[in-house]
Parts: sequence; structure tokens; C-alpha cells
Amino acid sequence: MPEFLELLPPGQALALMLNHLPDASPALETALAHCALNRVTGAPVVSGELLPAFSRSTVDGYAVRARDTFGASDSLPAYLSLGPETPMGKAPEFSLVEGQASLIHTGGMLPADADAVVMLEHTQATGSNELEVLRAVGEGENTLLPGEDLKVGQEALPGGARLRPPEIGVLMALGIAEVIVVKRPRIGVLSSGDEVVPPQKSPQPGQVRDINSYSLSALIEQAGGEPVQYGIIPDQADTLYQTLNTALQECDAAVITAGSSASTRDLTADVIQKIGDPGVLVHGVSVRPGKPTILAVCKGKAIVGLPGNPVSALVIARLFVAPLIHRLAGLKKIPLQPSVRARLKINLASQAGREDWIPARLIQTDEYYEAEPIFFKSNLIFTLAQADGLIYIPADVTGFSAGNFVKVEFL
Amino acid sequence: MPEFLELLPPGQALALMLNHLPDASPALETALAHCALNRVTGAPVVSGELLPAFSRSTVDGYAVRARDTFGASDSLPAYLSLGPETPMGKAPEFSLVEGQASLIHTGGMLPADADAVVMLEHTQATGSNELEVLRAVGEGENTLLPGEDLKVGQEALPGGARLRPPEIGVLMALGIAEVIVVKRPRIGVLSSGDEVVPPQKSPQPGQVRDINSYSLSALIEQAGGEPVQYGIIPDQADTLYQTLNTALQECDAAVITAGSSASTRDLTADVIQKIGDPGVLVHGVSVRPGKPTILAVCKGKAIVGLPGNPVSALVIARLFVAPLIHRLAGLKKIPLQPSVRARLKINLASQAGREDWIPARLIQTDEYYEAEPIFFKSNLIFTLAQADGLIYIPADVTGFSAGNFVKVEFL
Repeated sequence: MPEFLELLPPGQALALMLNHLPDASPALETALAHCALNRVTGAPVVSGELLPAFSRSTVDGYAVRARDTFGASDSLPAYLSLGPETPMGKAPEFSLVEGQASLIHTGGMLPADADAVVMLEHTQATGSNELEVLRAVGEGENTLLPGEDLKVGQEALPGGARLRPPEIGVLMALGIAEVIVVKRPRIGVLSSGDEVVPPQKSPQPGQVRDINSYSLSALIEQAGGEPVQYGIIPDQADTLYQTLNTALQECDAAVITAGSSASTRDLTADVIQKIGDPGVLVHGVSVRPGKPTILAVCKGKAIVGLPGNPVSALVIARLFVAPLIHRLAGLKKIPLQPSVRARLKINLASQAGREDWIPARLIQTDEYYEAEPIFFKSNLIFTLAQADGLIYIPADVTGFSAGNFVKVEFL
Repeated sequence: MPEFLELLPPGQALALMLNHLPDASPALETALAHCALNRVTGAPVVSGELLPAFSRSTVDGYAVRARDTFGASDSLPAYLSLGPETPMGKAPEFSLVEGQASLIHTGGMLPADADAVVMLEHTQATGSNELEVLRAVGEGENTLLPGEDLKVGQEALPGGARLRPPEIGVLMALGIAEVIVVKRPRIGVLSSGDEVVPPQKSPQPGQVRDINSYSLSALIEQAGGEPVQYGIIPDQADTLYQTLNTALQECDAAVITAGSSASTRDLTADVIQKIGDPGVLVHGVSVRPGKPTILAVCKGKAIVGLPGNPVSALVIARLFVAPLIHRLAGLKKIPLQPSVRARLKINLASQAGREDWIPARLIQTDEYYEAEPIFFKSNLIFTLAQADGLIYIPADVTGFSAGNFVKVEFL
């Protein structure tokens, strides 16, 4: 199964693969809320409480009965008598009588019969027991009523939401110690090639160490998946078929780096085609690096065949494996790939109709970032390690001139 | 120690704190390379090997002696005899004789006496044993010489570099199983306030659950630090002093969320001032939210006093705690905060001379992102959980009009 004659644009290719996946709900598990950073909620989180649970002051000032301040101004203050100070962390044991004010701190619970708070800066203590109020407040002003933030049964977090620091805070505010999250999608990782040996081995002449299994596992982890390594598979249809089949049974999807040569890539496509229907959907994408990419769905699970070159493999994994993991994790909002706009230092040519991703250093100047493309003869992994990001050249342009501003996605 | 009269801009305030820290080298430890994603190298990684270790083909084609192809063209091909095919994954057991070519795959080791590779598409097999070469190649063309990527003793990765997927790949390429990394900076986390109770407790009237200890721990983790929680401290100078002192001895820095009221914030500043010299450097920053921020260095370690409001605490932690962690981790390149430019949906006013950070939803349209500010009465943590990011209003503008493009930093 050689490359298709017509190369698909990356966006269309991804959509084609994702559209062939079943709409299954992801598997769920329970996680400790304070350890659940970056996990994805498996169901909406519903509040079991009123928040706030009591009327609170949102400022430092004096709790009052709003009608006692009616008409108060700098020139015509309202005079109130000072009642007891409102304690922090417990319910006041007094209620406010007419014409009375109580010193209250931000977050304090309003005494009974108080219905507003005058900010400290709008008051003036004029004697041991008297307060001038220089501004009128309306009922509820500078206070939060019970349930004003969340009512019982109200959705506090939607399902399919990534838990960032604010969401961890929300769970704590509600006293939720355990949260239902999506199981991290398990992604089988296979490396193929007769010349590839494990990193812990000393390569013999003609052999190279396996880079892709590990750099791809790191990328899978970064995207929220759980990498499951199936090791190095020789370029042999039978073994490849068996291992890939096992990986697909045990995992939610599989990625396989084909060997570097055209013949081993075709072998990979042939094997994938035999795993199950619909099989290979895309074989060849109009992107550089990464043209010989294979996208397939077999028995309801996705298989991504990546180029063997470690740089191409990582670029392509960003385009297809990361979004696949987001889909499998049920993420409602696809995380944006962080990027900056930077001023290109040299001319960059590109072929019309093809997306290009070019490793680049970013240099910060006073006014902007400069992007300096990195060209290595072999496009080995060291190129990428020296790069801050990848310059994006869209399909509809034939390159950029020095001085143009381009998008650089972070690595 | 009330707020200073002059508020410092956030950038200056941060620099003032960092400049007071000693230039100590961070503590190091050893990590398994394949588990070291996001760790920071503690020393340069130096190659112990030649890479590649042997002459390799970078294309699919035929290994040749370059001089045998001299002058070859479509109209006047060079005719070579076919020698044995070059095997993958081992050294060829033959050498190329004059006028001979050997089929070779990408990544294959060149046979002895071959010095270039002709790409497959520039050849034509014309008989069982004869090859037409349609283009001349120069010596070394389409090959990689030993050590062309890395020589023995050459720096493969600098110190102070964050290990991303490409760097993990570099370590594997060199067969490095263990890597020296910087110990994650330990950041003590203290929450203060008489009204604050642990999240697992049911708050009584007047009490609220501790959010900040957990949302800040998540942010510290995200920035590459190791949070160490010291629990909730009552608003009492003695206890605060003792706990903060212990935290500073056991950790590399400490953050403390002051209570919400002005008086507890001043208490916090007074206590920090007593911990050691030079003490409080900044008390009050021209930023909203977060004006009452305290930045201090005591006995060579930084203390950040955050506002008690959970939204303010997270915004300020992004501005001061994350960069502090990057500095303590010895990161050479400060990671950029991911952001997008988005079209503002409504007018936003701001005070000149003050930076503003406003929670906002992002809405993707066909052409751009729209930013929709979220205003909550109480600025509680739910505001932030509904936001995709924070709109940045620089100090030198007095707001933006609807339709302006603004920077939105991701949460």
C-alpha cells in the first residue's frame, strides 16, 4: 500500500481520522482532587452547598442597616452608634439595632439585621462610640448573599474540563475531596526498524538507538495520555501485525514509527490495513516534514503511522497524536498550542499547497521576538533540541521574506 | 507595616526581589532520563560518542563512488553495475568496486569505498544487473559522515534547560539513562486567616474553606516547583512567625496568603519583617487584582505575601511565584506564558499607571478569537474557573475599546 497520489492537508486528514472514531464515552475513574491537576472531569461537578453559606462582607468597613445611611454624604454625614465588632470565623452573637454600625473585615459574616457594608474609607470615627457615614449604601451593597456564587445543585464545573489551578480551587471551595475524571487514554507506542536498538544498548555498526519510543512517550504524557511501550519491532509483516494487534486491544489507540525507508513505510501501511476496517484512511499528508504519515482507524480505534525520522515523528505527533488524545479524553475545549509571533531573520521558501514546520530559535529583542530557522543536514533530533519552537508556513503561501512576522509554536 | 505609599510596577517589583536573592547554584539530583520530562538539566550534557557513529545514507537510493557519476544527466546517464544490496542494521560485508552501485535505504550504513548516494528517483534499473544514473552526485552527497551531528565531548544539551520531548530524544540518542537535574525548588505554602478551615471540614457560620493552599500548590507544581503545605495559621503574630520561620528553613522559598482584611495583611508584613534582613522589599504593587502584595527576602530566601482573595492570589502567583520558581530552578530560558491575541467584545476601563488582569472567556470565530470579560460581584474562584485566560491591560493605557485586539494569557 504505497502513498496515495493525492496528499491531504493536515487539517482535513485529522478530521477524517477523528470522524471515523465511534462516539464512545471515555472510561472514568476517581482521583484525589488535590492531586488531579491537568486531569479532565468525567462528569459535571455539582455544588452540594450554598456558596457563600452566609451573608459576607466583600470589603473592610462597617456593617449597617442600609436605610440608616439614607441621604448620607460628605457634607451631611449620617451618625451611627458603634456596636460590637464583628468577629472573623464565627457567627456574630448580636444583631444590629436601628442606628447602629459594627466594624467588619473582608469575608466577615454580617450580624443579624445588617444588610449592607459601608467601606472604611467612607466613614470617620468621631468619638469613642460614634461613626460618621459619608456615603449612603443600598441594601446588599458590599455584601454577598448566601448562594450568590453557587446554589445547591448548580453546576460548578462542566464535564470534559481540564483541571487547572482555578478548578482545583473550586473543588476545595466545595469540600470535594475526590473527583470523577477521565482515565488517561492509553496510547500504544511501537518503534519499527531492523536498524533500531534499545537506548541502553551500544549500537553496532549500522545500528542506531531508539529515540522515537521515548520522545513520543514524553509527548503523549504532555498531551494527557498514558504511553504504553511495545518496544522495537523488526521490519517483518507477521511480528508487526501481532504486536500492533495486541497494542490496539490493550490500548485506546496506537502510534507506530515506520522505518525510514519507503519500503518499510509501505510495509507498515499494509500491516495496518489488515488489522481491521475501515483501515488506512490517509497515506500521505501535504506537510513537511512528515509527508509519509499514515492515519487509520481499525475496529473503532485510531492508529497513527509516523515517519521514522525523529524530528518528523515529533512534528507529526503534535499535529495528529495530541489532538487524538484530547478527543479520546473527552476534552470539550481543545487546548491551544502556545505560540508567539516573531520576526523572521531570513527568507524562507515553501511549496504552495504544503504546510511547513521549521525548527527555529527565538531571540528576544526590545520590541519583538526574532525567529532564526535552524537547518541541519540530517534533521536529527539535535535540531529540535536547539529550537524554541516551530515556524508555521501555511499551505496557501509560498514562503516568507525576512522581516515578515510569522507564527512560532512552542515545542 | 502598612502598604508603602508608592506602588511599584509588577516588573520592577519582581526584579527587586530576584536581585536580592543570592547567586547560589541550585541543588542537584539524578533522574531517570525517560522519566525526566519537564525537569531542568543541572549541568551540560556532553556526548560520549560520535553521532552518527558511521556513514549513513539520508535517502533511499544507491550507494556509489561519486566519481563514477561524474557528468551523468538525463540525456547522458552513467551506467553502473549492481552490487549486493546494503543491509539495514548491520555493516555491509562487501566494499564497492569501481563502476558499482548498491541499493541502500534511508539510515543504511554505506559500504566501504562508497562516498555518496544517488536518490532512487534519479536512477533507472535497465536490466537485471545494470543501473542508469541520471544525475551526478558529489562526494558526501545524501550521506552523513561520522560525528557530523555530535563529536565526542561536544555539548549536546546546555545546563539549565527544560527537558521537553526533543531533549528526552537527545538523551536516548546518546544512550544516557540517567541525567543530572535540578531538585525541584521546595516552596512552603501557608494560608492565614481566623475564618479559614481545611476543605475536608464543614464550615460553620462565618467560616470558609481553604482554597489558596491547594490552588497555589497546583500552580507551584505547574511552574516546576514542589509545594510543601504548612496548613492554616490563625491571625496571630507568634504562630505566624514560628511557622513561617520553619517553612523558610525547610524550603527554598515561602508563599503566604494573608487574610482578606487590611489589618491581617499588615500583620503578615510585620511578621515577615521580623524573620530576617533585608525583609519586606515591596508592600503594594500597581496591579489589579493584587495591590496589597508583599515581596520580601529574609536570610537569602524569598517570601511572597499574597492577597487572601483566591483570584487575586492566583493572578499574583503567576506574576511573582512562577518566575521565582524558574529562577530557583536555574532555568536559562524563562518559559513564555502562552497567550493569544483576541478581539475585545466590550469596552474595558483601567486606571493609568496600573496593570490590570481581567478574567475572560475566549470564543473562536472564523477569523480570530473574541475575548469576553467575566465580572463577578465577589471575584470568587468560580470566576477564574469559567475563564480561559486573563486579559492584560498594560500600565500605560487607560483601557481598551470594544474591537481592540488584546493579549489574553492562558490560565
